[in-house]
Amino acid sequence: MPFWKKDNSNKEVYTNVIQGLRQIYSQKLLPLEEAYRFHEFHSSQLEDSDFAAKPMVLLVGQYSVGKTSFIRYLLNEDFPGIRIGPEPTTDSFIAIMHNEHGGVVPGNALVVDPTKPFRPLSKFGNAFLNRFVCSQVRNELLETITFVDTPGILAGEKQRVDRGYEFSQVLEWFADRCDRILLLFDVSSLDISDELKRAIEVLRRNDDKIRIVLNKADSIDQQALMRVYGALMWSLGKVLGTPEVCRVYVGSFWSKPLQYDSNRRLFELEAKDLFGDLESLPRTATLRKLNDLIKRARLARVHAFIMSELKESMPSVFGKDQKRRELINNLHLVYEKIERQQNIPLGDFPKIERMQEILQNMDFTKFKPLDKKLLERVDKMLAEDVPRLMSMLPREELAYMNSTQPEFG
Amino acid sequence: MPFWKKDNSNKEVYTNVIQGLRQIYSQKLLPLEEAYRFHEFHSSQLEDSDFAAKPMVLLVGQYSVGKTSFIRYLLNEDFPGIRIGPEPTTDSFIAIMHNEHGGVVPGNALVVDPTKPFRPLSKFGNAFLNRFVCSQVRNELLETITFVDTPGILAGEKQRVDRGYEFSQVLEWFADRCDRILLLFDVSSLDISDELKRAIEVLRRNDDKIRIVLNKADSIDQQALMRVYGALMWSLGKVLGTPEVCRVYVGSFWSKPLQYDSNRRLFELEAKDLFGDLESLPRTATLRKLNDLIKRARLARVHAFIMSELKESMPSVFGKDQKRRELINNLHLVYEKIERQQNIPLGDFPKIERMQEILQNMDFTKFKPLDKKLLERVDKMLAEDVPRLMSMLPREELAYMNSTQPEFG
Ligand SMILES: Nc1ncnc2c1ncn2[C@@H]1O[C@H](COP(=O)(O)OP(=O)(O)OP(=O)(O)O)[C@@H](O)[C@H]1O
Ligand SMILES: Nc1ncnc2c1ncn2[C@@H]1O[C@H](COP(=O)(O)OP(=O)(O)OP(=O)(O)O)[C@@H](O)[C@H]1O
Ligand SMILES: [Mg+2]
Ligand SMILES: [Mg+2]
Repeated sequence: MPFWKKDNSNKEVYTNVIQGLRQIYSQKLLPLEEAYRFHEFHSSQLEDSDFAAKPMVLLVGQYSVGKTSFIRYLLNEDFPGIRIGPEPTTDSFIAIMHNEHGGVVPGNALVVDPTKPFRPLSKFGNAFLNRFVCSQVRNELLETITFVDTPGILAGEKQRVDRGYEFSQVLEWFADRCDRILLLFDVSSLDISDELKRAIEVLRRNDDKIRIVLNKADSIDQQALMRVYGALMWSLGKVLGTPEVCRVYVGSFWSKPLQYDSNRRLFELEAKDLFGDLESLPRTATLRKLNDLIKRARLARVHAFIMSELKESMPSVFGKDQKRRELINNLHLVYEKIERQQNIPLGDFPKIERMQEILQNMDFTKFKPLDKKLLERVDKMLAEDVPRLMSMLPREELAYMNSTQPEFG
Repeated sequence: MPFWKKDNSNKEVYTNVIQGLRQIYSQKLLPLEEAYRFHEFHSSQLEDSDFAAKPMVLLVGQYSVGKTSFIRYLLNEDFPGIRIGPEPTTDSFIAIMHNEHGGVVPGNALVVDPTKPFRPLSKFGNAFLNRFVCSQVRNELLETITFVDTPGILAGEKQRVDRGYEFSQVLEWFADRCDRILLLFDVSSLDISDELKRAIEVLRRNDDKIRIVLNKADSIDQQALMRVYGALMWSLGKVLGTPEVCRVYVGSFWSKPLQYDSNRRLFELEAKDLFGDLESLPRTATLRKLNDLIKRARLARVHAFIMSELKESMPSVFGKDQKRRELINNLHLVYEKIERQQNIPLGDFPKIERMQEILQNMDFTKFKPLDKKLLERVDKMLAEDVPRLMSMLPREELAYMNSTQPEFG
C-alpha cells in the first residue's frame, strides 16, 4: 500500500469524531428537533448510516484503462470478486468496503442494510441490483475510505445493449453521493467515445469532485507523453466546459515497476499529489459533517424560538383561527422580535415563504412552549462538545506532515 | 542560426524552380491565356511578385512572450528596428525580408513596390502604414522564408486605444496570405485575454496554418510544465474549437542557454520538430505553386477549346445574335463535344453558369479560332517543363535527411 501506512492514528481520530457527532446528535440535538417538529419543516432525522458512511471514491473510465488495477494497487491486495484483464472485465458496480470478515454481499441484500448508505439504490430495480455488489475486505485503507469500482464504459451499441439498467442514472446517483470522482484515461486510448462523453456530462454537475488520472503513462517517452496529455486536455476542456482546469495526475498506477525511467520523478510527484488528495478526504469529509451539524443545530435553535413564539402568541379561547392567519401573514414580525430578543442575525432564520407554507396546515396550539432545558443542551453542545470534537481533528498541516511519502511498487 | 545552415543547396533549388515556373508561365502559358481572354473569365495575370513571394511565417501572441526574440534566435542576428524588452516593445508589423543591402523600408513605400506582396495593404490607411515596415537583412534564412513580427497583444483598453487601425483586420490579411502562423505563449502568462481570444478567432479560419509555441518553458520543472501545458491545451481547445489537436512546441526559443537541464532532451526534440516544420515551408510552398500552375494550365487549355469552338460555331453572315443566345443556353452541348473530341474529363471544365454569365456580354465573332501552336506549347510545358522542374525538387524524404540536427544556443 503506497500511503496511509504510518498514519494509523488519524483513522481512529476520524472514527472517534464521527462517533462523537452521532452521540451528541442523538443526545443533545435530536430532542430539540423532535420537540419542535424540525423534521417536518427542514430535513429528516439523521440516521446512523448518515454518520457512518465513509468518504467514497468513485472510479470511472473506459474499459481497460486500469480502474480495477488502480484500486488493487492502493489496497495492495485482491478484493473478493476482483477481475483484471485486457478485455472488458468488471461487469458490476462494486463497493469495496472494510469488514473484518470479508466476502461479497449481493445488491439485493445491500439495499436493505440500514448500516450501509445504499438503500435508495433499490429504485434502479433488479437488473441493476444483480450487477451491484459489496466486496468486503479487511484492509486498513478501507477503514477510512470506500471505493466504488464501475464497469468500463464501452463504445457504441455494446454499452446500451448489454446492460439492463440505466448506466448514466446509476452513475449520477453515485456521483452525487461520493466525495471524489476519479476519471481514468490511459495513454493508448484517449479518444472520448460518445458513451464516455455522455458519462462525463453526467458527472459534470459534480465537477468539483472530479480528478483525472492519465494512466499507463510509463509506456511512452516524455515527448509522446506531452502529446497525449495535451490531446487529453484539449478535448477534456471542451467536454467538461469549466473554465477551471481539471487536475490531471499522470502516472502508472499498478503494482508493477515502471517500464521506463525517464519520467520517474514526475510520476512520483504526481502520485504523491494524488494520494495526498485522497488522503485528505477523511479529514474533509469529517469536517464537512461537523460543519453540517453546527449549521443544523443553529437552525434547530431558531426554529424552536419561532415555534414557541407562535404557540405563546395564540389566544387561549376565542379567535384562534384569525390569530393564526395574522401570525402567518406577519411572520416577519415574529422573526424580528426573536432577532431582537435572542440576538440572532436574520440570516440564520429559515426562508419565510417556506415556513408560511408549512404552517398553513398546522394547529399552533399544539406547538410546545419554550423549553429552556432543551435549548441549553444544544447551546452547551455548540459551546463545549463541538469544540472538543474539533480539537481532536489534526490540523491540516499536521495531517500532511504525518502522512508518509508514497512508496512505489 | 539553429538550422538550414548546411542545407545551402535546397535554397537555390527552390529559387531555381520558382524562376523556372515564372519563365514557363510567361513564355508558354501566358500567350494562350491572352489569346483566349483567360483573365477576363478566370483569374488575373500572374505577376512577378506572385512567384517571388517567399513562404511567410507570421508570429502572433501577447506582448513579451518572446516573438521578436524568437525571430532573432532563428536569424542569429539583430534586424534593423529590432526591439526586445519586458515591456510591450514591438509597436509595428515588421516584415523581415532578405536584401543584400539591409535597412528599413517604411510602409508607404512598401505598398507601392511591385516586387513585394504588400500592395493590397494600402487599404488599411496611413495609421497602419505608419506602423508597418520592412526590415531588410542579408541573412541566409531569409532567402527562403519571410518572417512577419507583430505588435504584442495587450489586454483591455490599451489594445483598442493605442492603435489607430483595425488590428484584427490587418492580422487577418496576413493570416490569409502567410504559410504558417506561430502563436506564442509563455509559461508565466497563460491566461487568454479577451483581446487575445479575438485575435485567435480571427486566425481560426486559417487554423491549418497555426502552430503553437509554449515559450520560456525552461524556467519551471517538469511537473509545473505539465500543469502549465495542460492548462494551455484546456483553454486552447475551447478557443480554437477544432477537433484536431493543434501541435504545440514546448521550449525556450532564444539565444541564451537553458536555465534548467531537466527538460533539455524534450526541448531539443521539440525544437527539432518545429524547425523541421518551418524548414518544410519552402518545399511545400514551391510545390503548391507548381501545383497551382498545373491546374491553371489545364483550365487554360479547356478554356481555349471552349472559346474557339464558340467562335467556329458562329454563322459568317446572318443570325449571329440568335446563334449566340443558342450557344450560351446550350453551352453544355459545347462542353460535351469538346469532352468527346479532346478526351477531357468534364470535371476539368469551368463552372457552366459562370461562363454563361460572362459570355452574355461578349461578341463571339471576335474570339480566336483554335491556334494549335499555342496549345502545343502548353502541352509541351505540361509534358516536359513541369516534370523537369518537379524533378529538381528534393524528395520530402531527401529534404528531411539533408536537414541538419538543430544546434542550440
Ligand atoms: N498502470 C498500468 N500499466 C500498464 N498496464 C496496466 C496498468 N494498469 C492495468 N493494466 C492492464 O490493463 C488491463 C486492464 O486493467 P483493468 O482490468 O484494471 O482495467 P479496468 O479499467 O478495470 O477495465 P474494465 O473496465 O474492463 O473493468 C489489464 O490487462 C491490466 O493488467
Ligand atoms: N526563451 C526565453 N526565455 C526567457 N526569457 C525570454 C525568452 N525569450 C525572450 N525573453 C525575454 O522576454 C522579454 C520579451 O521578449 P520580446 O521582446 O522578444 O517579446 P515580444 O513577444 O516580441 O514582445 P512585444 O510583443 O512587446 O514585442 C524580453 O525581456 C526577453 O529578453
Ligand atoms: Mg475493472
Ligand atoms: Mg516584439
